[in-house]
Amino acid sequence: MTDVPPQRQLPNGSVNAVEGGAKPHRIVIVGCGFGGLAAAKRLARTEAQVTVIDRTNHNLFQPLLYQVAVAALSADSISTPVRSAFRGHPNVSTVMGTVTGVDRAARLVMLEDGTRIGFDTLILASGSVYSWFGHPDWAERAPALKTAADAILLRDRILSAFEHAELQTDPDAARRLLCFAVVGAGPTGVELAGAIAELSRTTLARDFRRIRPGDARVVLCDAGPRVLAAFPDHLSDYAARRLRELGVELHLGAAVDTIDDDGIVAGGTRIEAGNVFWAAGTEATPVAKWLGVEAGKNGLVAVEPDCSLPGDPSVFVLGDASRMTGENGKPLPALGAVAKQQGAYVGDLLARRLSGRAPPKPFRYRNLGELATLGGSSAVANFGFVRLTGLPAWIVWSAVHLLLLVSLRNRLVVYVNWMWAWLTYGRGARVILQEPQRAQQTAFHPAPAPR
Amino acid sequence: MTDVPPQRQLPNGSVNAVEGGAKPHRIVIVGCGFGGLAAAKRLARTEAQVTVIDRTNHNLFQPLLYQVAVAALSADSISTPVRSAFRGHPNVSTVMGTVTGVDRAARLVMLEDGTRIGFDTLILASGSVYSWFGHPDWAERAPALKTAADAILLRDRILSAFEHAELQTDPDAARRLLCFAVVGAGPTGVELAGAIAELSRTTLARDFRRIRPGDARVVLCDAGPRVLAAFPDHLSDYAARRLRELGVELHLGAAVDTIDDDGIVAGGTRIEAGNVFWAAGTEATPVAKWLGVEAGKNGLVAVEPDCSLPGDPSVFVLGDASRMTGENGKPLPALGAVAKQQGAYVGDLLARRLSGRAPPKPFRYRNLGELATLGGSSAVANFGFVRLTGLPAWIVWSAVHLLLLVSLRNRLVVYVNWMWAWLTYGRGARVILQEPQRAQQTAFHPAPAPR
Repeated sequence: MTDVPPQRQLPNGSVNAVEGGAKPHRIVIVGCGFGGLAAAKRLARTEAQVTVIDRTNHNLFQPLLYQVAVAALSADSISTPVRSAFRGHPNVSTVMGTVTGVDRAARLVMLEDGTRIGFDTLILASGSVYSWFGHPDWAERAPALKTAADAILLRDRILSAFEHAELQTDPDAARRLLCFAVVGAGPTGVELAGAIAELSRTTLARDFRRIRPGDARVVLCDAGPRVLAAFPDHLSDYAARRLRELGVELHLGAAVDTIDDDGIVAGGTRIEAGNVFWAAGTEATPVAKWLGVEAGKNGLVAVEPDCSLPGDPSVFVLGDASRMTGENGKPLPALGAVAKQQGAYVGDLLARRLSGRAPPKPFRYRNLGELATLGGSSAVANFGFVRLTGLPAWIVWSAVHLLLLVSLRNRLVVYVNWMWAWLTYGRGARVILQEPQRAQQTAFHPAPAPR
Repeated sequence: MTDVPPQRQLPNGSVNAVEGGAKPHRIVIVGCGFGGLAAAKRLARTEAQVTVIDRTNHNLFQPLLYQVAVAALSADSISTPVRSAFRGHPNVSTVMGTVTGVDRAARLVMLEDGTRIGFDTLILASGSVYSWFGHPDWAERAPALKTAADAILLRDRILSAFEHAELQTDPDAARRLLCFAVVGAGPTGVELAGAIAELSRTTLARDFRRIRPGDARVVLCDAGPRVLAAFPDHLSDYAARRLRELGVELHLGAAVDTIDDDGIVAGGTRIEAGNVFWAAGTEATPVAKWLGVEAGKNGLVAVEPDCSLPGDPSVFVLGDASRMTGENGKPLPALGAVAKQQGAYVGDLLARRLSGRAPPKPFRYRNLGELATLGGSSAVANFGFVRLTGLPAWIVWSAVHLLLLVSLRNRLVVYVNWMWAWLTYGRGARVILQEPQRAQQTAFHPAPAPR
């Protein structure tokens, strides 16, 4: 493949059109998260011509993304270039592009820039995006944590809030700047809130002269009555207790009514917060629209027990964009572990299909357990038969996440940073790249000096 | 200082106004680069009340910034938070803000957000900015490499160029995307051009399927006849030879006439380049305007042999913003080493002044040598009596830069990344955060598919 010169005019507008006699099977994978990567890795060892499409150039290890937002890790230390993952597999091509549609009749995937990519088999593993409960205007006020760019934005906002508060002469404005409201008390919200509290009470504690960073308010809101609702009751209770000890205020059973310049209103109570972060509702990427099929709740596409689209065995949807019922009769959760297992399953299914072997048994999710950190070397872990809290859970969490990181280089760099943080409470990535709150901040200076 | 609650109303609008009987001497340092940091470190050990103002929250180790642009290092691994550098010194305050003026009569520094900061002694170490020879419209087309955000922008552009070229069906457009023109053949331009060539010929070489990254053109332009003109002739010649071996085209004695969407025209020759980077002219930050004094060439402020402003011994200007004549009768070069030595000198001078001791002798620059890397484990080093080229120079360069990094944590992380790159040719930070060329790229698709 590497000897195809760029100047070759390709027929049909499709960049991977096949000419001449050899007709390898073309598999296109949309999305290179946990699911897409697992499928592509399996299929790289087949004869198929595989094309992996992603909006970015990297696979992102999302479970550690909150650590980028709180300046503990740099974004690249949890990212792996998709291309380099398939360097040794000339049958795998990588495309950085944004999918805008699928032409099922012509077997083409359309990208935003006009590129069209032909397929014989299509795997849609494009995951989910955050949704703001029908309030698109909340998105800018309450950014969510999904991409590397999101994490840098949150980091800029969190670090800038302390910098701006230090210069405030209006005490109300300073208090508002030092209030962080996190909406959604699932694992992402819990980990983010705990980490912000830890940041303010340890790393930043002695670095300011006029404000006391440890006085920062961190408020975790949820419409439901419990944090980590998917965990067993006693782990959920432990997490709530531990978060309170860290200084996180829990505001539960309170749905968000309003998000505005002054903060949020949740369950009728106003919380004056200069910083609001969103970790609540998600919805599927517009896979149903691309395919022209009916979308279920939150845009999910219902799939067969082998992850294929009902009525079309050459199209697969997996991970957060799909809906499949588990053995307990409930839908499988939107977890990286589900996507990863489904990706490996579909890869195996297609490898068998290509070599004429019998298909595998229907997909079955193996629940390997759930983990969430709470800040301050504490976590909760639920492995079904074993349930851990506190430091033991945190040690397991650290080890598992180091092992799950895609590249050895990332493991080394994350390990150095964690050891450093553990020894010094230091955060290795305290860099503000842009000043996101400048405009908002100026409002706190009613009488700026003439320029 | 830490017990000052944020709600205290401060008189005079100045955040560091001093109340009551104790009147410590207030020293304000603008800019926390090599010069400002050196001055602040010395003054932290005095009784003075020191305020360090910087546009960002971090000191940036600029000599390694080009490595961020070519995805070898993450931005935070060469950045140190200004605050944490002075954690143990309660007499040092840090302010993140942009200076817009100085009121010399009222002894106030004004910030963009309206904050005013009072001083008894002022040290201006705000450095230089790039200037585009009176063509402000070139700035966006040919971004320069000065801040961490700049480096991320360049990285996004460089990595995106290869991604977009891979999808091109128009061979001319693909060739243009894979042409990188660097304007200015001083150390920054040479290091950047060499590093882009190395990136395309090693790290990326086997990662693409339709383009050959090694075919990328890297063109280094300069109005002068030599690269690294400040180095002795034989080092300059060596650098030129080595760059050519790496695949860098040298286009010397050719001033830039035009920069447009298609590339540049230099010395009458058009170079079709999808990526143009600026490493040519710089000018001082507007220090002369702030002070109301006459600016010399490139906005530089002429200073006394002790770095003070003529006629005002309480104001100092140092580093890239100042002009001082060296022992050889020529102006001191705009180097980090000059700024660092001047910063330490002014810090010492003020420490003596505060304790009633005699002033030091006039500032004298100790030239410790010059270094520049050329890509591919090669460099040139000029220590006056010893001149090195190739691998020995590169080993010296690596050791010196590791030692000069501000924090131990940064040294560890940079070392891990360098070892990794050396063993694998891998680049640790191949992350595209934003897609900067989307708009430009779309122009290369004359007939995009309907959406």
